Amino acid sequence: MRGDNGPVKKSVYIYSPSGAVQDKVAFKRGVRRLTQLGYAVEVDADALTRFTRFAGDDDTRLRSITRACASGADVALISRGGYGLTRILDRIAYAEVAHAIDGGMHFVGISDFTAFQSAVLAQTGRCTWAGPALCEGFGVGGADGLVPDDIMEDCFQDLMLGQGEGAGWRQDASGYLPADDTAIATDAILWGGNLTVLTSLLGTPFFPQVDGGVLFLEDVGEHPYRVERMLTQLLRAGVLGRQRAIVLGQFTGYRLVGHDRGFKMARVVEWIRTHTTVPVLTNLPYGHVQTKVLLPVGAQVDLALSGRDAMLFWGHALPDAAHEHP
Amino acid sequence: MRGDNGPVKKSVYIYSPSGAVQDKVAFKRGVRRLTQLGYAVEVDADALTRFTRFAGDDDTRLRSITRACASGADVALISRGGYGLTRILDRIAYAEVAHAIDGGMHFVGISDFTAFQSAVLAQTGRCTWAGPALCEGFGVGGADGLVPDDIMEDCFQDLMLGQGEGAGWRQDASGYLPADDTAIATDAILWGGNLTVLTSLLGTPFFPQVDGGVLFLEDVGEHPYRVERMLTQLLRAGVLGRQRAIVLGQFTGYRLVGHDRGFKMARVVEWIRTHTTVPVLTNLPYGHVQTKVLLPVGAQVDLALSGRDAMLFWGHALPDAAHEHP
Repeated sequence: MRGDNGPVKKSVYIYSPSGAVQDKVAFKRGVRRLTQLGYAVEVDADALTRFTRFAGDDDTRLRSITRACASGADVALISRGGYGLTRILDRIAYAEVAHAIDGGMHFVGISDFTAFQSAVLAQTGRCTWAGPALCEGFGVGGADGLVPDDIMEDCFQDLMLGQGEGAGWRQDASGYLPADDTAIATDAILWGGNLTVLTSLLGTPFFPQVDGGVLFLEDVGEHPYRVERMLTQLLRAGVLGRQRAIVLGQFTGYRLVGHDRGFKMARVVEWIRTHTTVPVLTNLPYGHVQTKVLLPVGAQVDLALSGRDAMLFWGHALPDAAHEHP
Repeated sequence: MRGDNGPVKKSVYIYSPSGAVQDKVAFKRGVRRLTQLGYAVEVDADALTRFTRFAGDDDTRLRSITRACASGADVALISRGGYGLTRILDRIAYAEVAHAIDGGMHFVGISDFTAFQSAVLAQTGRCTWAGPALCEGFGVGGADGLVPDDIMEDCFQDLMLGQGEGAGWRQDASGYLPADDTAIATDAILWGGNLTVLTSLLGTPFFPQVDGGVLFLEDVGEHPYRVERMLTQLLRAGVLGRQRAIVLGQFTGYRLVGHDRGFKMARVVEWIRTHTTVPVLTNLPYGHVQTKVLLPVGAQVDLALSGRDAMLFWGHALPDAAHEHP
């Protein structure tokens, strides 16, 4: 039941490790929404700080991460993405992050947060969660008439209660369809996130070295030719070929132009498929969209197909610490 | 003297290895201009072909490159950039390209052509030229009243006559200013080009492995935060720190937004300088601008500074084959 998450309130710590919050009304609406859902919400002292386009200078944002780690909250949720984590990846106190995760904290975010998630996986092997940000997830509303998405909120609640065990979705017409229903991957590391942010870590110590994994990808505002160029880089760098599956989420917010003359995202999927034998699944409900699932980056997952329907399971394989706050 | 390049006409082969030509009027104007300058111009059979956004499908564009190699022209000049070379880097006949270069051919281009230039350097060690494309360089005019840039055309003529020996320019206020006039680099490999295209090759076999080089970079339509993210990737991948100098060309065509609040390209230059001791020079007249020099990618160069004035020399170090068509 919404608004009732057990005898002890689950808690959310809101902080801003990336871009400055631009829409403070959405921020406040998001905090109110989380409170309505029954969570105890704590807002970081610098959550609304601004330094040029960033939520405070690099030192400020690093201190915010440290405070999030020390907060003891069940979830540390970013206010928004943008750009900023890349700059400070070499200065994050990964031992503090790992200690917080081992103590039961779930770090949740999206977009620029892929930099943090990838670096945490690369540096500590720990699990973080790809999911909403406060403003775009819980803060929608007002003039646009949107309300927070049910599926996203349910997944968030499942995470809080340690009840989430997987996600299922239907691939679109361009989905991967083997001749028979099949298990694509078993005990494979789930990783990925925003394609642009992930690719921008390639060649650095913050790019996870995952073999036999399930790589999920989404992006926003990137033309298909740019998506293709990035996927081709991951392909030629040997990253795609080492995975058990590539799972494409939502690619949104780009604009095709007359010059494209039929070049579109479906052509990009075809291009990648002609260059790798790794299954490329489509239409994962994750990305810069309202309806999205939460995904454990760095966790072991199983991936199975039944016709167009894909199922991703992780409940069995998550460390106990990720289920229950001590 | 313009229009008189010696007893035997120098020749230019026009081909389209990347995006489809969108402005055929500019294309024709460019061919006319090169003819007026006294060059014999040959146009590839598929120079104006289109397949979706590309100048023909991958096979077509590969054949165009092969025909350019076999043309015997003094210069093989791309019609335009766009996107397309990345797709075919693994299928280019590098031995043919190397043979053509050894025979005296100069491959000239910009933007997407950086993929070709980097791959040729990585795979063969041969020298190609960063310079204009036909349409944007020689094809300007018409309603916009532009004429081809004098400096660009002079540099092109110098290349044709084997007379180019270097380029000098004045850094802007954010330039690198050592305490004393100094030689920054001697016998260093010059490489680089478009930052986005170059970075998209990182981790692949087509990214040149250059130590102690002079890395020049330009870009168009990339917000400073994206430029910073790419430079930070090259930095963390160890690429910047291995160079003798980083030379920033023109970064144009992006749009700052209100949210930036003072974050701009100058901040990016500062950011990189705080993270490397390698000199970062500015304002190289190269990029998506009319006034630009031609630069030998893969050649050995000397780089010297006198106050704000920078000088790049390559004449002494170019192989003879690059000077004279046998």
